[in-house]
Amino acid sequence: MKTVDWSLYVITDRRAAGSRSLPDLVWAAIQGGATVVQLREKEASTREMIRLGRALHELTQKAGIPLIVNDRVDVALAIDAEGVHLGVDDMPVSIARRLLGPHRLIGFSPSTLDEARQAEREGADYLGIGDVYGTPSKPDAGPPIGIEGLTRFVQAVSLPVVAIGGINVHNARAVIQAGAVGIAVISAVIGAPDPQEAAQQLRAIVTAQKGNTDESPNR
Amino acid sequence: MKTVDWSLYVITDRRAAGSRSLPDLVWAAIQGGATVVQLREKEASTREMIRLGRALHELTQKAGIPLIVNDRVDVALAIDAEGVHLGVDDMPVSIARRLLGPHRLIGFSPSTLDEARQAEREGADYLGIGDVYGTPSKPDAGPPIGIEGLTRFVQAVSLPVVAIGGINVHNARAVIQAGAVGIAVISAVIGAPDPQEAAQQLRAIVTAQKGNTDESPNR
Repeated sequence: MKTVDWSLYVITDRRAAGSRSLPDLVWAAIQGGATVVQLREKEASTREMIRLGRALHELTQKAGIPLIVNDRVDVALAIDAEGVHLGVDDMPVSIARRLLGPHRLIGFSPSTLDEARQAEREGADYLGIGDVYGTPSKPDAGPPIGIEGLTRFVQAVSLPVVAIGGINVHNARAVIQAGAVGIAVISAVIGAPDPQEAAQQLRAIVTAQKGNTDESPNR
Repeated sequence: MKTVDWSLYVITDRRAAGSRSLPDLVWAAIQGGATVVQLREKEASTREMIRLGRALHELTQKAGIPLIVNDRVDVALAIDAEGVHLGVDDMPVSIARRLLGPHRLIGFSPSTLDEARQAEREGADYLGIGDVYGTPSKPDAGPPIGIEGLTRFVQAVSLPVVAIGGINVHNARAVIQAGAVGIAVISAVIGAPDPQEAAQQLRAIVTAQKGNTDESPNR
């Protein structure tokens, strides 16, 4: 499972889903071309996360793509997910690697280049880098890092970099040009009126641009 | 580590601690006679829980008593704690047992007698039963179950039962008389002006009463 297509990484968000069913939205995103799904539920109980995670895992397994659990190594182990995504307030990468074994995926969102390099040393498989353009889903995030900031991370590590934060059909091409192997989106897909169509459009842009830049490293 | 003295089970609570250091308060409680410590931090990040859990684990290891982590199996594994305590919104006991292996302690707080019996079948090591007298620490809990409710749980399972909820020097004797093997307290120790003295008084009551009821089952 370590060879992953990071092109279109869709993150769940109950608020962006509104009254719509998350499994339905995720299935639509998969039909549209999502290549990775992340379960991200900051306010759910452990029991609820396991229940939802199992439902999503059925869908991702059917599609043959990885399900990543945000923060919660216990939930990832409980539902046998393919990996976890960790931030600077979550479990350190080195401990997560010990608990998850060598085969599961570990992603990390660093705040600094030093944290990025350290995560690479500690066994992370990819980095989530942002906020690139200013995200509507994390109103408490700092100022956007822009393409310039993204490029610095791409150059600092040899890990694949997934770009996140305000990415849409207008700017997706630019982040792939900057060296990201994929784009992570929450509201642009899960909050879209038609998540399948939204995913399809984004995936097409990423795939086309990656075809144009095959000579680039890190992919 | 499966032979545990459940007499005085002290649960951390940052709010009850106020501005005082939790490790200092826990150490005072241990000096006063705490026999089990539970790390319970509903609002801390995973990283903070690991940091605090490690600090507390040093103290409990020094004292030779178990550290139990509330809800978070990942944190328990990360800090190599002796066990977890689970509620009906947390990871199911059967999954926790699979992730934690046969030797770590698993406690469960059932809402019903059926849930209590199920937890016993799924491999729980003890039950936390309450709210016995009306707790100040969980204002959203239901009505207290009283000594009568506690007795029903004691009789329903062969697991050791730790009583929780509003237990203090005035009523501790009664819950041990009812068949509990110990008392779990938050504010009565962590929120006390002198946690060591508070622990000492509670422990003396439990120990004296357990000496009187050695013929009772479940201990």
